[in-house]
Amino acid sequence: MTGPSSADLRKGESVSDAPLSPDANVQFIGIVRTPYTTRDLCPRQGALDGPECRLELMPQWAPALKGVTAFEYLDVLYWLHQSRRDLLLQSPRGDGQTAGTFALRSPVRPNPIGLSKVRLIRQEGETLIVKGLDCLDKTPLIDIKPDRCAFTVQAPAKSADRA
Amino acid sequence: MTGPSSADLRKGESVSDAPLSPDANVQFIGIVRTPYTTRDLCPRQGALDGPECRLELMPQWAPALKGVTAFEYLDVLYWLHQSRRDLLLQSPRGDGQTAGTFALRSPVRPNPIGLSKVRLIRQEGETLIVKGLDCLDKTPLIDIKPDRCAFTVQAPAKSADRA
Repeated sequence: MTGPSSADLRKGESVSDAPLSPDANVQFIGIVRTPYTTRDLCPRQGALDGPECRLELMPQWAPALKGVTAFEYLDVLYWLHQSRRDLLLQSPRGDGQTAGTFALRSPVRPNPIGLSKVRLIRQEGETLIVKGLDCLDKTPLIDIKPDRCAFTVQAPAKSADRA
Repeated sequence: MTGPSSADLRKGESVSDAPLSPDANVQFIGIVRTPYTTRDLCPRQGALDGPECRLELMPQWAPALKGVTAFEYLDVLYWLHQSRRDLLLQSPRGDGQTAGTFALRSPVRPNPIGLSKVRLIRQEGETLIVKGLDCLDKTPLIDIKPDRCAFTVQAPAKSADRA
């Protein structure tokens, strides 16, 4: 947390004063390793031809990687653990012009879940080497999915699919 | 939860026996309303020309929608509250052929976060009308972001963006 204090707000920004409601638990499944060791070093958006990053799974989740190398692109979800969670309106350029949090891909959101499409380069045991991330080094990892564009459903279609 | 009992497993499926680690809290920001009132009625994948669904924000988060109607496509994240969380290997067709959880987009995953790209049809106060969802009616909503394909970063580029 950068500290949800109104002193940290830019011109025009506003916060929710509702207390955080702990409705469900996220469990960290591993850690993301990137070259970006400070927030200032992080790019605004990862590039699919950017530097290699590592998705290091905890050993107990490694079996769940079976078959993942069939996919060139993955959706990666991670927990932006340094982000405040109470901003309603944000001013990305700090100029007083604001947009709502849900009209931005800022890391600051009620549930600080980052989502990147990455290119899978290779697997090394319980680690995936990928390109395309923009998050801070040591960000907690929470999910890996085949990218929806490339994914073909394996289970049989259901009645609602046959529109 | 469908109950993480080994009696519910299909041939070839395997589970993690590690206890759930409550590393972070998710707060529900609203509710997703769809025509799919049972799991059997849900399609495998939502269609961008499918039925209208509703993202009903809690009133305290409504201001964070400012500017969202500028986007035709949104990424919607939701909490698949009925999913077990311990499967490592899954058999989508129930035929003994398995794939790892991270090679599938199944709702059953260590963090049951669903991710859909939706088309924004219109805003009605604190509710967004969208198409493209496949989740159960009354699924808790956790985030809304502009779809990454359409989103242009508004903040100035940083040094790591100028590769």
